[in-house]
Amino acid sequence: MSADWFRRRFLLGGPLPAPRPPRPRALPVPYRRPRFLRGSGSSPGTADASCRPDARPVRSPVRGRALPWNAGYAEIINAEKSEFNEDQAACGKLCIRRFEFGVEEDQEWLTLCPEEFLTGHYWALFDGHGGPAAAILAANTLHSCLRRQLEAVVEGMVATQPPMHLSGHCICPSDPQFVEEKGIRAEDLVVGALESAFQECDEVIGRELEASGQVGGCTALVAVTLQGKLYVANAGDSRAILVRRDEVRPLSSEFTPETERQRIQQLAFLYPELLAGEFTRLEFPRRLKGDDLGQKVLFRDHHMSGWSYKCVEQSDLKYPLIHGQGRQARLLGTLAVSRGLGDHQLKVLDTNIQLKPFLLSVPQVTVLDMDQLEPQEEDVVVMATDGLWDVLSNEQVAWLVRSFLPGNREDPHRFSELAQMLIHSTQGKNDSPTQEGQVSYDDVSVFVIPLHNQGQGCSSH
Amino acid sequence: MSADWFRRRFLLGGPLPAPRPPRPRALPVPYRRPRFLRGSGSSPGTADASCRPDARPVRSPVRGRALPWNAGYAEIINAEKSEFNEDQAACGKLCIRRFEFGVEEDQEWLTLCPEEFLTGHYWALFDGHGGPAAAILAANTLHSCLRRQLEAVVEGMVATQPPMHLSGHCICPSDPQFVEEKGIRAEDLVVGALESAFQECDEVIGRELEASGQVGGCTALVAVTLQGKLYVANAGDSRAILVRRDEVRPLSSEFTPETERQRIQQLAFLYPELLAGEFTRLEFPRRLKGDDLGQKVLFRDHHMSGWSYKCVEQSDLKYPLIHGQGRQARLLGTLAVSRGLGDHQLKVLDTNIQLKPFLLSVPQVTVLDMDQLEPQEEDVVVMATDGLWDVLSNEQVAWLVRSFLPGNREDPHRFSELAQMLIHSTQGKNDSPTQEGQVSYDDVSVFVIPLHNQGQGCSSH
Repeated sequence: MSADWFRRRFLLGGPLPAPRPPRPRALPVPYRRPRFLRGSGSSPGTADASCRPDARPVRSPVRGRALPWNAGYAEIINAEKSEFNEDQAACGKLCIRRFEFGVEEDQEWLTLCPEEFLTGHYWALFDGHGGPAAAILAANTLHSCLRRQLEAVVEGMVATQPPMHLSGHCICPSDPQFVEEKGIRAEDLVVGALESAFQECDEVIGRELEASGQVGGCTALVAVTLQGKLYVANAGDSRAILVRRDEVRPLSSEFTPETERQRIQQLAFLYPELLAGEFTRLEFPRRLKGDDLGQKVLFRDHHMSGWSYKCVEQSDLKYPLIHGQGRQARLLGTLAVSRGLGDHQLKVLDTNIQLKPFLLSVPQVTVLDMDQLEPQEEDVVVMATDGLWDVLSNEQVAWLVRSFLPGNREDPHRFSELAQMLIHSTQGKNDSPTQEGQVSYDDVSVFVIPLHNQGQGCSSH
Repeated sequence: MSADWFRRRFLLGGPLPAPRPPRPRALPVPYRRPRFLRGSGSSPGTADASCRPDARPVRSPVRGRALPWNAGYAEIINAEKSEFNEDQAACGKLCIRRFEFGVEEDQEWLTLCPEEFLTGHYWALFDGHGGPAAAILAANTLHSCLRRQLEAVVEGMVATQPPMHLSGHCICPSDPQFVEEKGIRAEDLVVGALESAFQECDEVIGRELEASGQVGGCTALVAVTLQGKLYVANAGDSRAILVRRDEVRPLSSEFTPETERQRIQQLAFLYPELLAGEFTRLEFPRRLKGDDLGQKVLFRDHHMSGWSYKCVEQSDLKYPLIHGQGRQARLLGTLAVSRGLGDHQLKVLDTNIQLKPFLLSVPQVTVLDMDQLEPQEEDVVVMATDGLWDVLSNEQVAWLVRSFLPGNREDPHRFSELAQMLIHSTQGKNDSPTQEGQVSYDDVSVFVIPLHNQGQGCSSH
């Protein structure tokens, strides 16, 4: 971790725990009263890291001046309900050094451009499975990978249009025209950097877990503000939504065995050996049994979004590649998500069948133009792990946001308290808006990110 | 073709032409004045097949009674501008026999249900390449494949909810619950039947072309009304839109090497041997040349929706798997579409590299609930091959529809004339709404399908 970066972790921030056997995700664990750890409620421009007992004023060793804690906007509440809280979070200021493409040019440029950094902010939630090890590694690593990837392309990001060549020299006179015709914009480089950072982080986690004899994986949901835009990158089943006075907009999609059925079935079609003869890649309404043999039953294959009927053969009685519905859907009977980081060692119990070939570490990235959006004071992004979304819909969360914020305009901690209140609402309290007071037994982590002034405050460009 | 089916073909309906070498799609051909062949302008319930000189009143040999020509709604204009018109069209009434699952049960059911058919309507456009052979075969075959696929599942389609088993017997008491939990509806069976019919038709075309020593492929755009719903299935770059007084809604997406870049690149990543060392799967803003070696240039790989930079190596100088932009984009330097029927023999010129592994015959299907839509008298679906959409946007077509129909309410041929007028508008006439009177040099085929009364008139259920 570089000196110009700081990060606040809210739970299990210490050394990696001892390895323990994988535990399936989302299985109910004994209920415990949530322990709330409140994040910072500071306003932009002040350093505040009061969320941990050992918190200290943050000072950047680089250039010897205090970095303003602009990311004090972020609020996270992490309900530590399971024995090992597998949710992890990270946030901080993202400082990207501009690329130095030659000592001479660099010195000249330093004179011309006293601002050495392109700055933004970073928020990330990681929901671990099979233990917290991968989530902790991701919380410690992903921002560094992202900074490295962004620094590799920052010269292109700050240009009006990314140049065909990073040197800025045209090999072919019509190079700018080709870039323009392909519609390549600076934001595409940030999207590309996020995609590459997730992959790089996945490789780091694979190496680190193998070296330490640990196992596990995690989902990853990242929000980044940079150059007046908000980027949301998601790999897994966490979710981010934008809540405004008259709008609720999803900023991410979930990646589960159900939502990625066709991709997963197609891989099994192309490489049947991945199933080792133990699974059927076909989808049926339920697992078939001996009595179904010879019957015509509903089924779907990789190329179908509709359904058809087929005559049941012996091989259709095998365990399905994707089985169960909704929260219970599992890939190879094991995993509830289809994208994420880690899981390099994960195998189907008592077999040699690996999960990793079916998992993607690459995120889907959504871009929100904050200059166009003109955010109002109570426009927020709510990021949360699946523990929240299992019991609250987007509309219910929006209703809670709109009920809470206007009455608490003077409270400097109101975004923090909103995050806390959202988690309270998953605990089946009488006044919660969930149907029949539904209770989340999963870990729940929530960021509430106010968007007002993010465009100006977060980036020097 | 079965006796209860009739179909009207508007051009090149005769025997297959002699084989000729493949011709790249969408290359400009010498301009010829379009020859308009007007379709039927009849109102529903009357038999009218006046579009061909040999047209005769259509009479169904089955049951010895005249079938009402409900599909007289359909209007197609096909501009025969190239030497061989590669556009083909088909439309007709779709009569689906209900499945007979046992003589005893069937007899009882016949007594109870005097209506033996489930009826709907079918419209299809096929845009051929490498000659019209595949398009002609598709126009002759696809509706039969679809009817066969629908008949195989019709028992499930007419049930309140498709049963787990086609026999209707439950093996497991909770079978209906499993079907409900998966959210499987009757319309999913129609979607599945359309998907299977496209695949079956593709196989038929492969066999027929091989047997007759011919070559070629075609796109396929199909609309079907059945049980109060409109289904639009698309494989290729034709397009269907819904035009209402205050709404323009796309009913299909185009499948081209550009829109399916990631799927195509991923296949080349999984099976690099498909490129035989002659192509690079990476995308660059332009084709690279020797001077680019060692430079950092913009690129994208299969897992990226954003862009990044990479250092150019020798292998990056190969011809790109997907090259060119917009209308000029080609798969393996050869084909402008990424889905369709046929092309089983198509190879990259002077190589053994096959196109077919990269092509999908499976369509994307959109479902429109006409009961919910409550179509008004001037609500229409416009289906057309790319020749129209190259020069007219959805909004321009909608503007033409809304300008034309209200002033011609009494004209029984108005939908036919609207289709004709749309094609006129692609000919660069002064009064056309295209920018600077753009001209389409491609074949153009248009269906205008009024939706009013389709829900009631087209299906006995």
